[in-house]
Amino acid sequence: MDARAMLAVALEEARIGRAEDGIPIGAALFSRDGELLGRGHNRRVQDDDPSVHGETDAFRAAGRRRSYRDTVMVTTLSPCWYCSGLVRQFGISAVVIGESRTFAGGAAWLRESGVEVIDLDSTECYELLQGFIAEHPEVWNEDIGE
Amino acid sequence: MDARAMLAVALEEARIGRAEDGIPIGAALFSRDGELLGRGHNRRVQDDDPSVHGETDAFRAAGRRRSYRDTVMVTTLSPCWYCSGLVRQFGISAVVIGESRTFAGGAAWLRESGVEVIDLDSTECYELLQGFIAEHPEVWNEDIGE
Repeated sequence: MDARAMLAVALEEARIGRAEDGIPIGAALFSRDGELLGRGHNRRVQDDDPSVHGETDAFRAAGRRRSYRDTVMVTTLSPCWYCSGLVRQFGISAVVIGESRTFAGGAAWLRESGVEVIDLDSTECYELLQGFIAEHPEVWNEDIGE
Repeated sequence: MDARAMLAVALEEARIGRAEDGIPIGAALFSRDGELLGRGHNRRVQDDDPSVHGETDAFRAAGRRRSYRDTVMVTTLSPCWYCSGLVRQFGISAVVIGESRTFAGGAAWLRESGVEVIDLDSTECYELLQGFIAEHPEVWNEDIGE
């Protein structure tokens, strides 16, 4: 499992979101052997839709599957409770995180429940999101319910 | 807060889902004083979309809000981890559940985190979902990641 190659796809999604003036958080769902199943990014601003986080967008794009046991969710930011719950409910077995400095989310809870969590502590992911938050703190707070 | 009146709306959504040959789970988001903000139902089958549970559909329909502190999520079935995470992340302060006999979900976890949880133990909700599960056990298992 090449976590850095997976993160590169999520980061590309985050940058697409930034270019659309949206919250720059991207995600992708891969099989453990590296096949890309779905990719997406936060669309709160673009679609006026509070339900579309990066992870839920990638999950939707991957479509219906009988099992997620062999899948990996990669996301530029540690998953919030909503997206951590998605990972746990559907039995996604690993999560690759770009950074958790901005937001710790449910990473520890996922680890405790048996999910493999890899935090790459990416400065690129951190700076991309921090740049957005500095400009639009109210949109960011809305996105995490604060 | 009239929990039974709120549940009636979620149950109506579940029945719409059933009539569409979908998984009959419905939900709605209300303000605490009873204003309907959004309603929806599971659309896995109808839209081929694994990300649309009743709660996420109702949440989306309600649109963007600055705060969910004064809102109530009502759902015909105890919310799964995904939907429980949604409730917790966005600070929805109360959940009205039709039934938790079919599936316990994250109700206890939400209670522990301070969410007001009211379980109405509705036989109508239970029988509607059980009827679907008896006919389509594989679709139900797919929907809860089992």
